[in-house]
Amino acid sequence: MIELTDLARQTGIQYSGRSIAISALNTLADAQPDELSFLQNKNYLAQLETTKAGAVFVTAEMAEHVPLSSIAVVVDEPYLSLARASKLFAPALIDVDAPLAVVGEGSHIAEGAHLARGAVVGKNCIIMPGVYVGRGAVIGDNTVLHSNVSVYHDCRVGTNCIIHASAVIGSDGFGFATTKSGTHVKIYQNGNAVVEDDVEIGACVTIDRAAFGTTLIKEGVRIDNLVHVGHNCVIGEYSVLVAQSGVAGSTTLGRNVVLGAQGGMVGHITVAPFTTLAARSGVTKSIAESGKTFAGFPLMEHKLWLKLQGKLARLLKS
Amino acid sequence: MIELTDLARQTGIQYSGRSIAISALNTLADAQPDELSFLQNKNYLAQLETTKAGAVFVTAEMAEHVPLSSIAVVVDEPYLSLARASKLFAPALIDVDAPLAVVGEGSHIAEGAHLARGAVVGKNCIIMPGVYVGRGAVIGDNTVLHSNVSVYHDCRVGTNCIIHASAVIGSDGFGFATTKSGTHVKIYQNGNAVVEDDVEIGACVTIDRAAFGTTLIKEGVRIDNLVHVGHNCVIGEYSVLVAQSGVAGSTTLGRNVVLGAQGGMVGHITVAPFTTLAARSGVTKSIAESGKTFAGFPLMEHKLWLKLQGKLARLLKS
Amino acid sequence: MIELTDLARQTGIQYSGRSIAISALNTLADAQPDELSFLQNKNYLAQLETTKAGAVFVTAEMAEHVPLSSIAVVVDEPYLSLARASKLFAPALIDVDAPLAVVGEGSHIAEGAHLARGAVVGKNCIIMPGVYVGRGAVIGDNTVLHSNVSVYHDCRVGTNCIIHASAVIGSDGFGFATTKSGTHVKIYQNGNAVVEDDVEIGACVTIDRAAFGTTLIKEGVRIDNLVHVGHNCVIGEYSVLVAQSGVAGSTTLGRNVVLGAQGGMVGHITVAPFTTLAARSGVTKSIAESGKTFAGFPLMEHKLWLKLQGKLARLLKS
Repeated sequence: MIELTDLARQTGIQYSGRSIAISALNTLADAQPDELSFLQNKNYLAQLETTKAGAVFVTAEMAEHVPLSSIAVVVDEPYLSLARASKLFAPALIDVDAPLAVVGEGSHIAEGAHLARGAVVGKNCIIMPGVYVGRGAVIGDNTVLHSNVSVYHDCRVGTNCIIHASAVIGSDGFGFATTKSGTHVKIYQNGNAVVEDDVEIGACVTIDRAAFGTTLIKEGVRIDNLVHVGHNCVIGEYSVLVAQSGVAGSTTLGRNVVLGAQGGMVGHITVAPFTTLAARSGVTKSIAESGKTFAGFPLMEHKLWLKLQGKLARLLKS
Repeated sequence: MIELTDLARQTGIQYSGRSIAISALNTLADAQPDELSFLQNKNYLAQLETTKAGAVFVTAEMAEHVPLSSIAVVVDEPYLSLARASKLFAPALIDVDAPLAVVGEGSHIAEGAHLARGAVVGKNCIIMPGVYVGRGAVIGDNTVLHSNVSVYHDCRVGTNCIIHASAVIGSDGFGFATTKSGTHVKIYQNGNAVVEDDVEIGACVTIDRAAFGTTLIKEGVRIDNLVHVGHNCVIGEYSVLVAQSGVAGSTTLGRNVVLGAQGGMVGHITVAPFTTLAARSGVTKSIAESGKTFAGFPLMEHKLWLKLQGKLARLLKS
Repeated sequence: MIELTDLARQTGIQYSGRSIAISALNTLADAQPDELSFLQNKNYLAQLETTKAGAVFVTAEMAEHVPLSSIAVVVDEPYLSLARASKLFAPALIDVDAPLAVVGEGSHIAEGAHLARGAVVGKNCIIMPGVYVGRGAVIGDNTVLHSNVSVYHDCRVGTNCIIHASAVIGSDGFGFATTKSGTHVKIYQNGNAVVEDDVEIGACVTIDRAAFGTTLIKEGVRIDNLVHVGHNCVIGEYSVLVAQSGVAGSTTLGRNVVLGAQGGMVGHITVAPFTTLAARSGVTKSIAESGKTFAGFPLMEHKLWLKLQGKLARLLKS
């Protein structure tokens, strides 16, 4: 917890109004009365007007839209101020005072695996050499972490999971605010990543932790090698991400979505359950109707993509 | 070895016929008389009729095509039954009873490298910190494994190879059968991966082990960073896979094939020797004639691809 | 240092001319009087005529263009001879005689991190388990290396950097010469990689060391997960490389270039400052004018790319 007045002072903001204790940063939609949020993009104005956040960074122009239950902290660049404030809430990577890691019965922790103080490993797990499990991270029963897997602090992996070598769970999301002079200010990624039960994750896969809240890989998902999942994504149950595909931040997939090899999705969209995306698909808009098959970039229905290739073949002969 | 009747019982199959001892699972084409195979896709019917497999999972409809030398085990979903049976043949990741790793003369095993019991390292190797060499894995003479490389159990790396940091040799192929309700059942990848002599493999490359048999990287191959090679592939001698390219499972490349950066190949195809594929090529069909140059997705001869770009430029101006 | 006559003998070259001591290999443009260079491609003839290199591998046909200050060593295939000579200058991976690593005040070196003899870590750093810092590598103050990061020998990372798990700094560039019979001869990558201050690098990123000289990531750069940067690249200040993008060797980016997700750039080009490249852009030529936005492969201005998609949509309906 940090007093709003202290937070303002430490982030270089002129502020002399009322103070409350702030426990975390969060989005307008999810923030609680002891949390601080921000409005940068006017598209989220409706969210500002109904936010439960205890305080909000806003520009002077938008201050009148802050609800009475919330404190308006007027700044020139709300997103930049948020970035500067985020460092104050970054959890420690290491806790030398935490108890030694707890390991359940029947688990094999190989020599050369590193369980941080404050980590928990369930029963009948196999933790191979070079694995790192961070402070506050929890690994469920019967899970196998292959060599050189990293599970960052505060992340969770469910039961009966298999994570292949050099995969990374909970690295920082790609978040920063850019100043007028072109330098970047890191938005500390204070959320976590959670992998539910019965998930298999391939080698050299990267799943970023959330800026706020949780990046979520739901039950039964299958992720192939070298796949990237951005911060705050939700990958629906039994979805399949084929090799070298990527999902940008804050995108939500329904259950049993298939993203083909080398496919990609932009951030902040929603993809309906049972959607199939051919290899190299590039998804730039939400998909509302479930059960359809798409291809191409720009994306189109797969049968249209085939038709387009026919048209191009004819164009080539013309 | 497991009795067929036991295997059936443990995978939830009703079976009361004749039993034989089964040593492994395999494809119809490669299975031996002590191995079990399956027919899911009718395109492989000819392979069923000539298989040497001792037993085969088939649907009732296909049972009459099983040769007399083989036992037909009738199931509703052969591929799913195969997946369930595969777990029974999965080799142990760790063998605490195996002898300590053997290391040849002149090799430098850095502090922080982990050689499993039952691993073998040849002469004059350099094994850097964080490397893991699994049970039953063999590393040839004069080979360098850079930091944090993983070589899974039962895999082999030849002589005079260089494997760069965080590369993974022998992670599980991306294999699973999907049930009618949409859940996935893992096909345990009980084969291995073999890297022949004089191969260089880049950082964060992933080479999956075979479901049955071997994923093979032949002599003199060059693989750049962040490349994916799927299970059961064969990469021909002196072939070159440029950065961020990928080859899906069971695809075979002849010698001196060049796959450009960010290129991709689907599975189950064959690419002729001395084929050159430009960056971003997407190869979806076998290439029979050797020595040609292709580009694009869909793939076409490079000169046609250039012509198509000219046509599109004119379309844009029209 | 190695005498030119010895170098020739050890690389299988017939040479009985004058000898000088050679300290390194280098490009025609950068070579010093105690360095050896080569001319393979006649496009670089002007560089040959003005080179300061002490000696040059050239074909007989080109020998007359070697300046008087330089020794012409006539060979059939200069690039191949260079490759063979490069091995003679390869630095040792390990120096058992170097002093123990030096660690600055306030730094936390986790159990399971490996600092080679001859490595230097600054003040107030956090070095997580499984990290490897090679011989002669230097890590600046306040930098965090997450678990299983590899920093190869002779590379440098600046102050206030964050490098995420399984990233690799300084792996060998993808360099080899191919013989007439199709085999490959490695060009040892005897340069290094340097990451300046205030840089953040994502998980499973690979940054290759230079063949000669330095691969340079300049101040304030942001690199997302699974990005590849080839040897001898220069990534300008505050540039942003989004997930799964790649830059091929010897390409130079100005400041504040943005390369979108899954984008790519060929080697040996220059991209002007403040260029923005949409996701999946494929950049094959230099960009001279700063501040513009591009998309597509082949690359075109973003507004043209949008227009092209409109034309294709109409073609599809025709």
